[in-house]
Amino acid sequence: MRYWVLGLLLWTACCWSQTEDQQQIEAIFNESLIAGKSYDWLNYLSNRIGGRLSGSVQAEQAVKYTKNQMDSLGFDKVWLQPVMVPKWVRGTPEFAYIESKPGITNNVPITALGGSIATPTGGIKAPVVEVKTIEELASLGRDGIAGKIVFYNRPMQPGPINTFEAYSGAVDQRYKGAMEASQYGAVGIIVRSLTLRLDDLPHTGSMTYGDLPFEQRIPAAAISTNGAELLSTTLKLDPNIRFYFKQSCKRLSDVESHNVIGEIRGSTYPDEILLVGGHLDSWDLGDGAHDDGAGCMQSIEALRLLLATGYSPQRTIRVVLFMSEEIGLAGAKQYAKEVKSKGENHIFALESDAGGFTPLGFSFDCSEANLDRVLSWKPLFEPFLVHNFTTGGSGADIGPLKGENIVLAGLRPDSQRYFDHHHAENDTFEHINKRELELGAAAMSSLLYLFDKYGIAINSKG
Amino acid sequence: MRYWVLGLLLWTACCWSQTEDQQQIEAIFNESLIAGKSYDWLNYLSNRIGGRLSGSVQAEQAVKYTKNQMDSLGFDKVWLQPVMVPKWVRGTPEFAYIESKPGITNNVPITALGGSIATPTGGIKAPVVEVKTIEELASLGRDGIAGKIVFYNRPMQPGPINTFEAYSGAVDQRYKGAMEASQYGAVGIIVRSLTLRLDDLPHTGSMTYGDLPFEQRIPAAAISTNGAELLSTTLKLDPNIRFYFKQSCKRLSDVESHNVIGEIRGSTYPDEILLVGGHLDSWDLGDGAHDDGAGCMQSIEALRLLLATGYSPQRTIRVVLFMSEEIGLAGAKQYAKEVKSKGENHIFALESDAGGFTPLGFSFDCSEANLDRVLSWKPLFEPFLVHNFTTGGSGADIGPLKGENIVLAGLRPDSQRYFDHHHAENDTFEHINKRELELGAAAMSSLLYLFDKYGIAINSKG
Repeated sequence: MRYWVLGLLLWTACCWSQTEDQQQIEAIFNESLIAGKSYDWLNYLSNRIGGRLSGSVQAEQAVKYTKNQMDSLGFDKVWLQPVMVPKWVRGTPEFAYIESKPGITNNVPITALGGSIATPTGGIKAPVVEVKTIEELASLGRDGIAGKIVFYNRPMQPGPINTFEAYSGAVDQRYKGAMEASQYGAVGIIVRSLTLRLDDLPHTGSMTYGDLPFEQRIPAAAISTNGAELLSTTLKLDPNIRFYFKQSCKRLSDVESHNVIGEIRGSTYPDEILLVGGHLDSWDLGDGAHDDGAGCMQSIEALRLLLATGYSPQRTIRVVLFMSEEIGLAGAKQYAKEVKSKGENHIFALESDAGGFTPLGFSFDCSEANLDRVLSWKPLFEPFLVHNFTTGGSGADIGPLKGENIVLAGLRPDSQRYFDHHHAENDTFEHINKRELELGAAAMSSLLYLFDKYGIAINSKG
Repeated sequence: MRYWVLGLLLWTACCWSQTEDQQQIEAIFNESLIAGKSYDWLNYLSNRIGGRLSGSVQAEQAVKYTKNQMDSLGFDKVWLQPVMVPKWVRGTPEFAYIESKPGITNNVPITALGGSIATPTGGIKAPVVEVKTIEELASLGRDGIAGKIVFYNRPMQPGPINTFEAYSGAVDQRYKGAMEASQYGAVGIIVRSLTLRLDDLPHTGSMTYGDLPFEQRIPAAAISTNGAELLSTTLKLDPNIRFYFKQSCKRLSDVESHNVIGEIRGSTYPDEILLVGGHLDSWDLGDGAHDDGAGCMQSIEALRLLLATGYSPQRTIRVVLFMSEEIGLAGAKQYAKEVKSKGENHIFALESDAGGFTPLGFSFDCSEANLDRVLSWKPLFEPFLVHNFTTGGSGADIGPLKGENIVLAGLRPDSQRYFDHHHAENDTFEHINKRELELGAAAMSSLLYLFDKYGIAINSKG
């Protein structure tokens, strides 16, 4: 055979394949936008079940609902993976006010941080010391802090285009603010809500006491950004004002819950597993539509879209809805542990946990060789404007699967509105746009398709 | 000088310049996100003035407000350009119902199309014939249509990623549906609202009677998509049901209004004009926050951002807020006419009229040489995710400026949510996200900066 004939054949094969990929991906997007299921499913999860705090009745209802969903889609195998999860309950609604003079008070909206202890039954009233950073505590010293409430008031920065960057730059106050302030004798902490908006909604989120003995633990709450502005201004006028807050949250014993798992077995390489997932638990203030009901419904939909467009996976594709991401990642750790003990070979894991907004691309955590492979697929995503491929973190639940021969990926939606709703009572279904959600599911399904069809580049040391 | 030294110098100059551009654009985005004015301005325009129908009192208030705004920003020259505009008034709220049997009625939400005549005072009640396309009218013929209300019910298609494509594929029903149906003796038309959602909000928009004599004109209204579904289903059960609607809108005599114009004179090439703008009029149902209050405020902000970051334009940068885009483009035509009569040299015009959503890029209508220039700037927009540069239409108001030696451009925001609000009562300020709006203004300002600094490639035939 002459070289040019061979060349022509190779060129034809290559172009035909490209066209096949384009057609498949277009079919996926069409199915999602025209006959997608994710929006109706998320409506049920959000409005019929609601907020799904780890260990709650609603979380168990969500486990049952999503298992039934996967059963009804005809997946080859659907099962529940038991896992012990934390159970923290909020109790009666929190209450707080700024007391500028005895008897002169302004109520402000607060919410207990997830994992915090309660205040004494009658609440806490104490003077306030405002700081912008944890480092400031040391310069104030015990003299400046003991007996007071520490008020962390460093706002998220509006500059970064990626709002998760701003979040990372401020979340230390919420996560370890109580632990640090306690060591200087603070009686409680109040943290400015992690959002870029000025509004009246407090945003909760997880916090830790680390190894602090129980008697040194102090209650921690988030205050709305408007409340934080008011408190800061009031303090400037009179540093002797006092702050009152009361919350009755508590941590109960761990309870059994489940990761919900469903899979289609691969026809050719059943032992190579592609995982797609999100976390099924949420905070309790809203209904967890964006965080992370969206990611869960998109994950199930991503696999359904493959089947609905007539594609038969060569590899095993597994949907995993992780339990208890918001409070300690118990589900993710349990899943990774069992993967290891069973010696399962996960070659790809994709998480959607950044809201159901218009997808703009993916982030990848993988070897150079696999990154090259992924970048070669970028043109396939360009017609759908989901082609911003970056390197970096993937998702908290799939993080424990990290290894040499796995590609980790995270869906990266437009992040501008995410923290308007994050961990607050307005993380609700009404703030989900159907098409934005569906585009995310389609983008995820398309990436699964490509990894299923082409596999990954194996590290020769592996 | 040895060639390699020259090469090194050129390379250094090139890189230094690149860095300067990067710094300037980063400064613009920072200023917009940290100290931007567009959101507060739009709040005033939307909530204090409200919907700004061509020829209305509110439109005049908007003219005054925006002129004052530009005056207060210290632009070199701010003026009002008189233009005669159509004045169409909606009158009392419209009313409609489906009568499935005499006395058995279901009210449905409708809104008169902009430019439509009223029904008779008592309304119109008539049998309905449903069509999906204007072409179907011919096959139904006069026998199938005369004395009936034609119900255009072709939905916008969910498939296209760019929702404007779906809009283009359906808008003929609204724009010329009445004119066409009248020729077969229809007594009125009802058009399915142009939105991709199923909801209860009717979406208005412009329509034409073309050259139809007055006595042949028939009233035209849009029905909500849920209403359209109900009407269609009811018709399938019984083709003899009747539809009633009543509207009292009318066209009055044209009135004088104004384009609002402000500029900073260029230091080096004052006769080369860069235009940035949007349209100041809106529909009356909502407050016109997205269409096109956002574009107007972004345009003023784009110029303010240049000044606030210390940049001195070499060319003249002019903000133009066009009047009466929604009903006939009178302002745009007047502006273009005066450009021509004065022999002004516009080298660049940029419009924002696709909503205040996260900007994803720009579309360009220009020569190959200028497109090459623009594409070379793409990397500067990548860090801000505004680098989807396409060719195609720019904006209705700047369209009349088209010529050989001008680059026309349109801001292209994410389009997923645009038609949820377009021309409906939920096009309101509460659906504006501050950061999304600000990113658009910054992207526009950055493009102005580059065209101001580098000019355009001139067509040698020009």
